[in-house]
Amino acid sequence: MAIAATETQPTAARAFGPAAALSCRECGERYDLAPRFACEFCFGPLEVAYEFGALTRAEIERGPNNIWRYAGLLPVPDNVAELPNMDPGLTPLVRADRLAGELGMRSLHVKDDSANPTHSFKDRVVAMAVEAARTFGFRTLSCSSTGNLAGAVGAASARAGFRSCVFIPAGLEEGKVVMAAVYGGQVVAVDGNYDDVNRFCSELIGDPAGEDWGFVNVNLRPYYAEGSKTLAYEIAEQLGWRLPEQIIVPIASGSQLTKIDKGFRELIELGLVEDRPYKVFGAQATGCSPVAAAYEQGHDVVQPVKPDTIAKSLAIGNPADGPYVIDVCRRTGGAVAHVDDAAVVDSIGLLARTEGVFAETAGGVTTGVLRKLLDEGALDPDAETVVLNTGDGLKTLGAVEAGVTATIKPSLDVFKEAGLL
Amino acid sequence: MAIAATETQPTAARAFGPAAALSCRECGERYDLAPRFACEFCFGPLEVAYEFGALTRAEIERGPNNIWRYAGLLPVPDNVAELPNMDPGLTPLVRADRLAGELGMRSLHVKDDSANPTHSFKDRVVAMAVEAARTFGFRTLSCSSTGNLAGAVGAASARAGFRSCVFIPAGLEEGKVVMAAVYGGQVVAVDGNYDDVNRFCSELIGDPAGEDWGFVNVNLRPYYAEGSKTLAYEIAEQLGWRLPEQIIVPIASGSQLTKIDKGFRELIELGLVEDRPYKVFGAQATGCSPVAAAYEQGHDVVQPVKPDTIAKSLAIGNPADGPYVIDVCRRTGGAVAHVDDAAVVDSIGLLARTEGVFAETAGGVTTGVLRKLLDEGALDPDAETVVLNTGDGLKTLGAVEAGVTATIKPSLDVFKEAGLL
Repeated sequence: MAIAATETQPTAARAFGPAAALSCRECGERYDLAPRFACEFCFGPLEVAYEFGALTRAEIERGPNNIWRYAGLLPVPDNVAELPNMDPGLTPLVRADRLAGELGMRSLHVKDDSANPTHSFKDRVVAMAVEAARTFGFRTLSCSSTGNLAGAVGAASARAGFRSCVFIPAGLEEGKVVMAAVYGGQVVAVDGNYDDVNRFCSELIGDPAGEDWGFVNVNLRPYYAEGSKTLAYEIAEQLGWRLPEQIIVPIASGSQLTKIDKGFRELIELGLVEDRPYKVFGAQATGCSPVAAAYEQGHDVVQPVKPDTIAKSLAIGNPADGPYVIDVCRRTGGAVAHVDDAAVVDSIGLLARTEGVFAETAGGVTTGVLRKLLDEGALDPDAETVVLNTGDGLKTLGAVEAGVTATIKPSLDVFKEAGLL
Repeated sequence: MAIAATETQPTAARAFGPAAALSCRECGERYDLAPRFACEFCFGPLEVAYEFGALTRAEIERGPNNIWRYAGLLPVPDNVAELPNMDPGLTPLVRADRLAGELGMRSLHVKDDSANPTHSFKDRVVAMAVEAARTFGFRTLSCSSTGNLAGAVGAASARAGFRSCVFIPAGLEEGKVVMAAVYGGQVVAVDGNYDDVNRFCSELIGDPAGEDWGFVNVNLRPYYAEGSKTLAYEIAEQLGWRLPEQIIVPIASGSQLTKIDKGFRELIELGLVEDRPYKVFGAQATGCSPVAAAYEQGHDVVQPVKPDTIAKSLAIGNPADGPYVIDVCRRTGGAVAHVDDAAVVDSIGLLARTEGVFAETAGGVTTGVLRKLLDEGALDPDAETVVLNTGDGLKTLGAVEAGVTATIKPSLDVFKEAGLL
């Protein structure tokens, strides 16, 4: 069931629902809703601007059990729930009492986005891009990806009937490569790291060869990025329409963190939650921590780095939204921190053995940063806290050393002698 | 929010909700709700018998977005949703229009249980066993497993605070081994196949060494098995409180198929759905098809086989519920069929490229049987049909041959020359 975007609109579907324009995040210049991503005047990034109608908690709660319950807050048509899409979202907000106990915390939840259709948060953003691509008449969906996005684009293209061609850095984890390729689209590995792949895609999109392609995270990026707002909406709704006091978010491009902040602010503005302070904390792996470095040094500009970390889904050395991440974390009283690969592995294990959540390396990064900031006193152990797991351990099997305890003959005597009881 | 099990019960939680007794499926002898699984008189399997109270669609729809919305139909306490458990269920029922189109069908849905917490339907049954183990005071959870169950037991034990020790056949897929071990419990590989592992566990449970262990699929099996009913409830609710006309279910032990039938019949008896005919079809891999063989030969007894198939999660050569499966399929007008491993691989690809669902080999088996029975005219292409995907392709990566289309230098010229546009 779709939610009416505004009270006064006609019932005919509008392609972008409550979205009114694209606006430049730097200079505020407004543009029609088109497949464009950079301001013509100042080259700043464009984002979706809305004219929201009235929307109640009850209307949202009556909606479908996926992100389309928030259709009234997203750049999608009213009837989006009826269109072929992966319908991600409403992933579990796990009450993590055992992990909280180990860390000496009072209230901790894990938002577990491994429950999405292709087992990462990327299904949320791709779902938006699919709707925009449909409206703009693109036939091919594409992306530059560290792996999770490639799988999400592949699956969504299959479901919605698009051709797909995704670009990944060579040498990704097997699970991510297979999951990108199994849906029948093209998967092109590029010699280089993610930043090289991204530059290649920018070149392709400027070429006539790529002109009818929808690159979900380039020319569809303003629409795509809005999908991350749904994490904020769901967390607030699942807490009983309340904002958490502290949230720990991983940083790759940084877009997710800034959109979670945008989502929280929208809920306050619409009167759907009480206006109370919340602190946003950003998490990076030490081997790719340009935003944390800038934050620690008090800079506004993020110096690109060459990534070297097992957290490949966060291995973006030149994060597009880095400066905006620093803004959000400073404004809300949060911080940006990083943990090394050993802490990532250890934190994956901690989360698994206390809560039964098998996180991707990115979830090890956020859980590791949670522990680190608690140790340093930067996080309040008594404040209501949410930590994000944005991906699935099955896709990064090589990062954990877990295997059989023993191999035995099928005999009770052998079992007893092995001392396994 | 838990659902009141009956209208007249006091609000104090009863450990097994509407469950009234265990009863023998062969002779009908009744037993108290205890950790027992076989009839003392005829050695028949025990199952849970209920005294249901009145329950409305609206009460269910107001419940949590997981299997606990059906708590009033399950052997669990009223307050189950507040207890630490994996809270599986309410997985997507995907409207598979593109797959239906390829197969010439009018209405097809895929029930995609890869969306469960450990990405197989086993989370449903383990969730029941956890509640029974809590009530009976067991400290250790155990199982014999072809892989998916081991992961589900490991995760649920971590979440709910049990020690765990699971038994698997040696040589399982890496994804399944890691997913069993990452939660910190013991994983014991046994030299032999699943049937050897199962015999070993029966030996252990009869020994004093195993007496305080809850084996989810042995001494907790009557409770555990009820979890599969939730698949039936969800499919009916997601179709708009209507039974499908045809459903294709994989057969491992056969328990899932018989419980889906039980769930449909309960919904009819409770007046929650219209009483209309439905046909249940069972699906096996040719390399482990003892139930299909017995069905084809018109036998009631299932002759054990030695499994040899890539569909390891279905590789049970001596399926405990085989005869009951044949009963259900004959009674409802369905059938039991099998497909070879090549058809399994091909069907995984078909499901992925038409619907964006990356199924485990078991999903390849059901989709393969769907195609085969359509070709043979045993399935009606115009009847409303549901096919089950009970697991996740990420756990059986070796079964599919999907990889990068090409590896190129990050240059537009190279890309164009490669002919990939």
